Amino acid sequence: MRILEIRERTVPLEGGVANAVIDFSGHTVSLVAIVCDRKRCGRPIVGYGFNSIGRHGQSGILRDRMIPRLRAADPSSLLDGEGRYLDPAAISSTAMRNEKPGGHGDRAGALGALELAVWDLNAKLDDEPAYRTIARAFGRSTGRRSASVYAAGGYYAPGGSDSESESSRLRAELAHFRALGFEAFKIKIGGATLDRDLVRVEAALEEAGAGSRLAVDANGRFDRTRALEYARALAPFGLRWFEEPGDPLDYQLNHAVAEAYAGPIATGENLFSAIDVANLLRYGGMRPGRDVFQMDPGLAYGLTEYVRMIESLEANGFDRRQCFPHGGHLINLHVAVGLDLGGCEAYPGVFQPFGGYPAECDVGAGRVWPTDAPGFGLEQKTELRRIISDWP
Amino acid sequence: MRILEIRERTVPLEGGVANAVIDFSGHTVSLVAIVCDRKRCGRPIVGYGFNSIGRHGQSGILRDRMIPRLRAADPSSLLDGEGRYLDPAAISSTAMRNEKPGGHGDRAGALGALELAVWDLNAKLDDEPAYRTIARAFGRSTGRRSASVYAAGGYYAPGGSDSESESSRLRAELAHFRALGFEAFKIKIGGATLDRDLVRVEAALEEAGAGSRLAVDANGRFDRTRALEYARALAPFGLRWFEEPGDPLDYQLNHAVAEAYAGPIATGENLFSAIDVANLLRYGGMRPGRDVFQMDPGLAYGLTEYVRMIESLEANGFDRRQCFPHGGHLINLHVAVGLDLGGCEAYPGVFQPFGGYPAECDVGAGRVWPTDAPGFGLEQKTELRRIISDWP
Repeated sequence: MRILEIRERTVPLEGGVANAVIDFSGHTVSLVAIVCDRKRCGRPIVGYGFNSIGRHGQSGILRDRMIPRLRAADPSSLLDGEGRYLDPAAISSTAMRNEKPGGHGDRAGALGALELAVWDLNAKLDDEPAYRTIARAFGRSTGRRSASVYAAGGYYAPGGSDSESESSRLRAELAHFRALGFEAFKIKIGGATLDRDLVRVEAALEEAGAGSRLAVDANGRFDRTRALEYARALAPFGLRWFEEPGDPLDYQLNHAVAEAYAGPIATGENLFSAIDVANLLRYGGMRPGRDVFQMDPGLAYGLTEYVRMIESLEANGFDRRQCFPHGGHLINLHVAVGLDLGGCEAYPGVFQPFGGYPAECDVGAGRVWPTDAPGFGLEQKTELRRIISDWP
Repeated sequence: MRILEIRERTVPLEGGVANAVIDFSGHTVSLVAIVCDRKRCGRPIVGYGFNSIGRHGQSGILRDRMIPRLRAADPSSLLDGEGRYLDPAAISSTAMRNEKPGGHGDRAGALGALELAVWDLNAKLDDEPAYRTIARAFGRSTGRRSASVYAAGGYYAPGGSDSESESSRLRAELAHFRALGFEAFKIKIGGATLDRDLVRVEAALEEAGAGSRLAVDANGRFDRTRALEYARALAPFGLRWFEEPGDPLDYQLNHAVAEAYAGPIATGENLFSAIDVANLLRYGGMRPGRDVFQMDPGLAYGLTEYVRMIESLEANGFDRRQCFPHGGHLINLHVAVGLDLGGCEAYPGVFQPFGGYPAECDVGAGRVWPTDAPGFGLEQKTELRRIISDWP
């Protein structure tokens, strides 16, 4: 077995939505393809991966640094002991050769896309869905099962709108999610005043039916004072969780919110390495059995590093079911199922071509079942198939 | 005043050297040029900046994200109140538009190169050296003065060598540095066994003359056990400092070394944002009046963010003279002088075309004086002038 070619391509995200901090209309994602010398039905087997959503495509780092290092490596050094599969850890360390420690930002997304393409390829070599390959690699059950999935939406419309039309838009959005089979929801906060955000939360709650079905996400927007002010105001709603109250690296602020707010808090989507997660555990006041971890393999050096994070959580008394990876897409559905995580996210209708699940996935009672298509099954998703089908 | 054009160019580093973690032979640096509509001697004034050394060029992030955002902005929004200079903070926030919080890695270097080019341009608009522009902007003395500069070398030769030839190579290297006017030195450790590293340290000490003139740098290589083992073994030498014993984000390890090792420790070159530095101050056990901070503006979003770090140090009882920015080059010489820092680094003969200072700089008694060439004076450095002279 041998890699013939590694390609990367920058894909723009469709649709204009905004959270409290950013407008996604100019955002891109890196899609990576690893072509190997093994074939199915006369065509080379290709592994695909991408670096999730929200942190931009990483074409420069892939093209200038990581892909050349892999091309320069002894091909056999990139394989497992028997030479039958690609070795994700070996590929990661080769792609990271001559990179200094620290600074876990864009390059973590570049490697994420690349390393996940390895998992897609390995699963396809065995003609099996990726959740099964992942489960086997990390000692979990390989049986078919579902993940709890919540629908994330409730973005601010760029340009804004008045309170009443915003409330009815939110209710309609959640009603649509419910009609699609979702039973838990997440909306954005922090992009408006507290009063106006509370109107949004109340409108969403009318549709969600219970606080336990509705999470809110501030996208790291608040300073300590405002985070605590929101915590006080949100407490009576008994929400599913309060996400990223402050800067994702401000562990002290997170600790203060965890002390003041009895409900679950969620964070981690902007922590891209095991050492950053270790710091969250050491200093952030996260509570075993209660709080939620949202690290996203595609943004954080891939599954190899993600499993290091899970191990460190478990070594500190946390349960892997407290993990709900950021990024509502097929890759993280397979990760959540394969690793028995708490669940994952879905973005019905936005962040195309990456967001959401293909029609072939069963959805019901707030759960999504991956199909048994080989790999992550990205080819089953219409919007992605268009891009993949003639490339490479 | 108006920006006509922003260009970026990837420049390979010359010379093959290695520290405990990486080989620099494939490394690159991003050089940024900002061309404005003001002229000197009939030619447009151009500001140049680069993202220091060690974390790779950032062409992709500059071209795909930051430069397009600046091009799309209202030109007047990028100027100071009177429209006479570029506003470094406004340019930084525009270049970072629609970027999520956290993940301070490669993009911090991309913005570093860009923001420093703004300072070079602003200084040239007033026909003055950058240290003076920087000093005026941040309320320091604008008089000409020097910075304490130490010579950093003592790299491992790629491929390795025997202990004796390594010792004599180290002594010859430090003797050469001394002949150039340097009185303090730094060598690498952590790329060999402790015993062999101690032979290196002893050889270097023979030439340095005193522990207070010799720092050692482990480049984040050690785990806690090995960091403490080195700390114990190094303690009797009374070294200038022990640099980056462990992972730059492992504040707990840094804290443990600070508790066990009475001499100064140095870290920060791989912390790229004010919040990462805040975490070092909160959790890392750094000691006012003793330890050394090496954050590097070119790798950390530029001078605007760097000054936030200095303010946070001072608010926590530290002295700015504890700061010795990583990256031995002209930009950080002007930063060290303009902000009255403890000093900066020099890499005599390596990391060309960026490393070191032009012949026009006075060097003596372990200090370097910037010249009064406009801006950072990069055009005075022969190796850089070759690149700059026909570009853009």
